[in-house]
Amino acid sequence: MGSEIQEIKNTIVQRLPKRVQVAKVEFEGPEVVIYTKNPEIITENGDLIRDLAKDIRKRIIIRSDRSVLMEPEKSIAKIQEIVPEDAKITDISFDDVTCEVIIEARKPGLVIGKYGSTSREIVKQTGWAPKILRTPPITSEVIQRVRRTLRKNSKERKKFLQTLGNRIHREMPSENEWTRLTSLGGFREVGRSSLFLQTTNSKILLDCGVNVAGTDDKSSYPYLNVPEFVLDDLDAVVISHAHLDHSGFLPYLYHYGYEGPVYCTTPTRDLMTLLQLDHIDIAHREDKPLPFNIKHVKKSIKHTITLDYGEVTDIAPDIRLTLHNAGHILGSAITHMHIGDGQHNFVYTGDFKFERSRLLEPAVAKFPRIESMVMESTYGGHEDVQPTRNDAEKELIKTIYQTLQRGGKVLIPVFAVGRAQEIMIVLEEYIRHGIIEEVPVYIDGMIWEATAIHTARPEYLSKDLRDQIFHMGKNPFISDVFHKVNGGNNRQEIIEGEPSIILSTSGMLTGGNSVDYFKWLCEDEKNSIIFVGYQSEGSLGRRLQKGWKEIPLKEDGKTNVYNVKMQIKTVQGFSGHSDRRQLMDYIRRLSPKPEKIMICHGDNYKTLDLASSIYRQYKIETKTPMNLETIRIQ
Amino acid sequence: MGSEIQEIKNTIVQRLPKRVQVAKVEFEGPEVVIYTKNPEIITENGDLIRDLAKDIRKRIIIRSDRSVLMEPEKSIAKIQEIVPEDAKITDISFDDVTCEVIIEARKPGLVIGKYGSTSREIVKQTGWAPKILRTPPITSEVIQRVRRTLRKNSKERKKFLQTLGNRIHREMPSENEWTRLTSLGGFREVGRSSLFLQTTNSKILLDCGVNVAGTDDKSSYPYLNVPEFVLDDLDAVVISHAHLDHSGFLPYLYHYGYEGPVYCTTPTRDLMTLLQLDHIDIAHREDKPLPFNIKHVKKSIKHTITLDYGEVTDIAPDIRLTLHNAGHILGSAITHMHIGDGQHNFVYTGDFKFERSRLLEPAVAKFPRIESMVMESTYGGHEDVQPTRNDAEKELIKTIYQTLQRGGKVLIPVFAVGRAQEIMIVLEEYIRHGIIEEVPVYIDGMIWEATAIHTARPEYLSKDLRDQIFHMGKNPFISDVFHKVNGGNNRQEIIEGEPSIILSTSGMLTGGNSVDYFKWLCEDEKNSIIFVGYQSEGSLGRRLQKGWKEIPLKEDGKTNVYNVKMQIKTVQGFSGHSDRRQLMDYIRRLSPKPEKIMICHGDNYKTLDLASSIYRQYKIETKTPMNLETIRIQ
Repeated sequence: MGSEIQEIKNTIVQRLPKRVQVAKVEFEGPEVVIYTKNPEIITENGDLIRDLAKDIRKRIIIRSDRSVLMEPEKSIAKIQEIVPEDAKITDISFDDVTCEVIIEARKPGLVIGKYGSTSREIVKQTGWAPKILRTPPITSEVIQRVRRTLRKNSKERKKFLQTLGNRIHREMPSENEWTRLTSLGGFREVGRSSLFLQTTNSKILLDCGVNVAGTDDKSSYPYLNVPEFVLDDLDAVVISHAHLDHSGFLPYLYHYGYEGPVYCTTPTRDLMTLLQLDHIDIAHREDKPLPFNIKHVKKSIKHTITLDYGEVTDIAPDIRLTLHNAGHILGSAITHMHIGDGQHNFVYTGDFKFERSRLLEPAVAKFPRIESMVMESTYGGHEDVQPTRNDAEKELIKTIYQTLQRGGKVLIPVFAVGRAQEIMIVLEEYIRHGIIEEVPVYIDGMIWEATAIHTARPEYLSKDLRDQIFHMGKNPFISDVFHKVNGGNNRQEIIEGEPSIILSTSGMLTGGNSVDYFKWLCEDEKNSIIFVGYQSEGSLGRRLQKGWKEIPLKEDGKTNVYNVKMQIKTVQGFSGHSDRRQLMDYIRRLSPKPEKIMICHGDNYKTLDLASSIYRQYKIETKTPMNLETIRIQ
Repeated sequence: MGSEIQEIKNTIVQRLPKRVQVAKVEFEGPEVVIYTKNPEIITENGDLIRDLAKDIRKRIIIRSDRSVLMEPEKSIAKIQEIVPEDAKITDISFDDVTCEVIIEARKPGLVIGKYGSTSREIVKQTGWAPKILRTPPITSEVIQRVRRTLRKNSKERKKFLQTLGNRIHREMPSENEWTRLTSLGGFREVGRSSLFLQTTNSKILLDCGVNVAGTDDKSSYPYLNVPEFVLDDLDAVVISHAHLDHSGFLPYLYHYGYEGPVYCTTPTRDLMTLLQLDHIDIAHREDKPLPFNIKHVKKSIKHTITLDYGEVTDIAPDIRLTLHNAGHILGSAITHMHIGDGQHNFVYTGDFKFERSRLLEPAVAKFPRIESMVMESTYGGHEDVQPTRNDAEKELIKTIYQTLQRGGKVLIPVFAVGRAQEIMIVLEEYIRHGIIEEVPVYIDGMIWEATAIHTARPEYLSKDLRDQIFHMGKNPFISDVFHKVNGGNNRQEIIEGEPSIILSTSGMLTGGNSVDYFKWLCEDEKNSIIFVGYQSEGSLGRRLQKGWKEIPLKEDGKTNVYNVKMQIKTVQGFSGHSDRRQLMDYIRRLSPKPEKIMICHGDNYKTLDLASSIYRQYKIETKTPMNLETIRIQ
């Protein structure tokens, strides 16, 4: 047993009341697990654990010693007796490895009880430590899959966490002398984001994305083949958010033998699983196989450690990680790392939105300390000023209103994660208030599944939405106005039916059902197509924006030409990225100010423009590394 | 046999006259060796080999097949018959491994003969290929040692060169995608220079120095412990010049298992051997052992491949190296690397002097191509303007003249390599012309040995000196005015004797015999001490410059105070570094101009000052990396 865990055990035994029998204390990943025959004594005394955790600077989990566990059958009956029926338990299962009972319920708050009272009662009466999960109001196949994978591999996972725990708490051979960052992808470009942080003692990978617009392996994947990136020495991967340009290459690491952890929020884990599986699926269909497969997505799930915003976690002997809300998509995070014992504090913004949206709170701008920062610059050019959310919504609604008035249908091509849900919330509200008439809103493709994941994690939504959902019992996502599209026949009916609004992927009409809808709808001038996101050069979306009226499209080997008569509308202002003003405003509001800012995730010109503006306005040193450069931050 | 050597062999056989029997063709390091039974046919036809070498873009060596070699005894007689007595052969030995006869002579030119005629005659008559070495007019123990080491390990060396040859000519698994530079030491500081160049396919280390003023291992040695520096993957080390801050850590590489080549000029090899051995010796005496020993210096000699200025050499499958005169010290080089097939050209100036000195020609400023450059900035601050050479000499001579006039002695503390020889040339000339009276000039410490090495390589000296030595037969270094000091008694005689000039190490009075001379001479106001080099903060030299008149010095455990009455004089302008004007002028004269210049080898402030001045004046992008940063150059 390592000396650190021994020391921790001594502290714990000293602090706990004498009557508590501590059977075992061990590391499980970044956490300390106490096995005891009297879990009820500890759990009844919440302050005790809180103080203890503060003292040893670790998160603590209490588990029962196997000997005090009630039989599962009896435990189920007991739990159903303790938990109010209103909680709507949908499943109870037992994990022999961790001595946990996993309770899935529609209203998990009622399983926890006031200040955890119900949950504590379960421990007291059954011995099993409850792990309480939300049953989403819309069934999510991905979440079911993730939960099944974790449940089935509980033993393997425990072993992984124990090994990891010892690695995180290893002794450092020497003091840290330096910290540096190497840009492996996504610098002076957008796509394949990947940043490698090295201290003298530890190695962390921040994001591991793909450039889906890449033309070959060299332009699609981050530069993981550089000599300083040694997979065996990697302590951790941190994923800022689920979009493929930040998470898409993660399965590759597991294909090539990575056995370490991935840290991210729970929504990021679920959403990236969805997007990674879809990516593999599309690649397979297009006969452009990726250098990894479903197995490696599964391996990644088994190695993921989810963190809530604000949870301080040791991920290496000299690094403490904290994730903060980034306001970009559900679960998106700004990564804060505390390096060494007060030596350095580093922040990686990932993609962030510094404005309240319908879906999310604005990005966090206050940190205990920052010395250096890497920030995105997607809209970093001085001309990249977007309309306000309010104006954007008005513009969207006006176009929809007019289209429906003239008996037309509205097609909104959207990216499945983020933008789609933002638009859904807007539509639901305007329909509920009668500003646009109550027509069906069809949700096609992956959007439905992504929405289901949103309903499973209401804690990550904006305060307004949380209030609606928790206090007023109104979840806009499950409103009757939304209709899931089921396959081809259903689509035919939609096209031939009454006026409606259709949300479909892909967002740039580069494939997927949105292209089919476009074909069906484009030749009728009553209809509209509304673009709410960026259309990249060469995409069908961009061509329509440019005013092309004759669109040749390949179908079953021959080319058909479509005469576009529908209204083409672009509404700006729904971006999940901060616009130029918000980027500059973020630096203004940032507290404290870093000494050095490195700019990433932007075209060459926007990167340089933002860097020089920040330097001029705030006199903070800025750097604009290219991919494969290394910057010393300490 | 690799496909490349096979192809080369085919070309060679096709091109050579039918009657030449080619026994074997193989790589030996970067060169191609042809073994033949008729060496005389090839060597007689100089153009043939020159054209062939151009064609296969490799240097070619012709060696005889063992079967045609004459017996050594008979060969010696034959050689003495062929070579004119005037050549003054001092040694003839035979290398069975390479089938070479090594002829050492006072006048190697006469062994070579007009257009190589004498040398060819030796091949023709004995079969042995002559390798002709200069016997220096002053015996150099270091050169003897180096030659002995190479002779004794001829077999091992041949094996090393063959392995290396195959490695250099290996097939590249993929095209180069990038080239980058990582600063491992000597950036924003002076000392421990080391620069790591990586292409997708190759890894080269440029310089490997120590900071002799470092207080611990961390501040003394370059950062070789970074993950991207993998010793096994290193293709080559290039040493720019012999000073320890560029070559001092080289033996460490061999201690830690490096088995690859070191490229440098012949004087650099010899001078750095001298300085490395001295460094080990001093460390041993001061009981501060270094992390390597004499064995590793020897291993480094065995792995050194010497190159002449202008010789283009393959050192990796995608890198061609050319060394050019840097004007800093004997054999100092500016490193030019041609990367890929026309992809990129990189220049590392090392330390350079862009002004003709007594000893050397000014640094080369014309290259076939340069895209990026790393340059030194020792005197990069805008205030770092030095007097001209001419003014410096006048100042020096005036002080010496006055001292001798009043019957005093002159002590000039100097660094053994470079500055000492420069001063010697000046003194010899002014004494020869009768401007200062003919007093003995005592050469103490390592200076004598360093001077001996200078006399062995007159080809590397300035045109003026070469003319004097080769055409007028006057070698200033062997002038009668110079007297080698032999041990303690001799010094006592010098002190008690007539007026004289004493050159002694160390140059900053931080140890060595110069301190003893100071003690003996300082209390007599007739004497002078003249500083001709930089005195670092804290050194005794600097204290004297500041005007200290009472100097406490520890001797045999007790402290004695010396009352300084001698004249203290500092003469600037003898530096081996370009001053600020010369640095700026170098960029102005540089042809062609690079797109990017990185600044190294200077204090933080001087680095930044030079970088911004170059950018302002020439609009060339400049970078000022810190140690451990990586810059992408292509």
